[in-house]
Amino acid sequence: MTLGLYSDNEPRAAFLGVDPGLRRTGYALLERSESGPALREAGVIRSKSGISLAARVLEIGTGLREVIQEFKPEAMAIEQVFSLGRNPKSALLMAHARGAILMVAAEVGIPIIHFTPTQVKRLLTGSGRASKEQMQHAVTRELRLERLLEPNDVADASAVALCLYYRLRFAA
Amino acid sequence: MTLGLYSDNEPRAAFLGVDPGLRRTGYALLERSESGPALREAGVIRSKSGISLAARVLEIGTGLREVIQEFKPEAMAIEQVFSLGRNPKSALLMAHARGAILMVAAEVGIPIIHFTPTQVKRLLTGSGRASKEQMQHAVTRELRLERLLEPNDVADASAVALCLYYRLRFAA
Repeated sequence: MTLGLYSDNEPRAAFLGVDPGLRRTGYALLERSESGPALREAGVIRSKSGISLAARVLEIGTGLREVIQEFKPEAMAIEQVFSLGRNPKSALLMAHARGAILMVAAEVGIPIIHFTPTQVKRLLTGSGRASKEQMQHAVTRELRLERLLEPNDVADASAVALCLYYRLRFAA
Repeated sequence: MTLGLYSDNEPRAAFLGVDPGLRRTGYALLERSESGPALREAGVIRSKSGISLAARVLEIGTGLREVIQEFKPEAMAIEQVFSLGRNPKSALLMAHARGAILMVAAEVGIPIIHFTPTQVKRLLTGSGRASKEQMQHAVTRELRLERLLEPNDVADASAVALCLYYRLRFAA
């Protein structure tokens, strides 16, 4: 007999975090376990280089659709990005990928929660100005992993998935 | 008997031009006629205000999918935008809509041609620095319309559709 929150017959709710990018979009799926949030699956959806922008956007969108179909997450979290940073062109390309990702998620009706980068940092480290390294360590600790998550896209996707997990956990 | 390029039984090839926006996306469908490019259909796909970004992106993407399904254009043209203009935030929102639009078009396999704003202006007026008014007049003249196309989204979509029309007409 299982003493956890879920019996083995019950489907486990998955929380999807996404780190959008045109070349690489990271994703992470968390689920509840007796000892807290647990990493169930994570990966990177890549688009081929040397193909058109539309074809790349399609690869990212289709890849995310497959992840959603396989794991049926109960909600999706994604970083809200309204500043352009140092590279406006790459911010615009990222926004194209983000548009396809949001469309795919909205199409299947998954609730989508946006977090600003500062919110993600503050939630996981207590400081809105945490470094990449501090974030990596926070994610590793929260998920009780033995080593740092790599690549960075996966770590970032896990960070935003953790925010979603805690938001929904404590809102219920 | 019809002396035109197409008999009435033959489906007329449609050329789709799109002016992407998150709130309003203009579209125009041109076809060949004996006297040149003719406006077959044009309109604006609107997203409701006060709904989430994902829901808006979905409305724009779904609206364009319906246009494509109805008119089965042989190609689609869209403006290439890599500068952020005066309002970076609205450029980022536009890029989200553009991502959904490109995904929908790529999904059905329509060839997509990008034109820079300068190319569109130069092709239609001879000058890459043409004003909005000059562009409106050029579109009206090329399509032999009796009055200016409105709203602006439709005029801009028709302009890029004209570029597509001439590009494919003279490439063949």
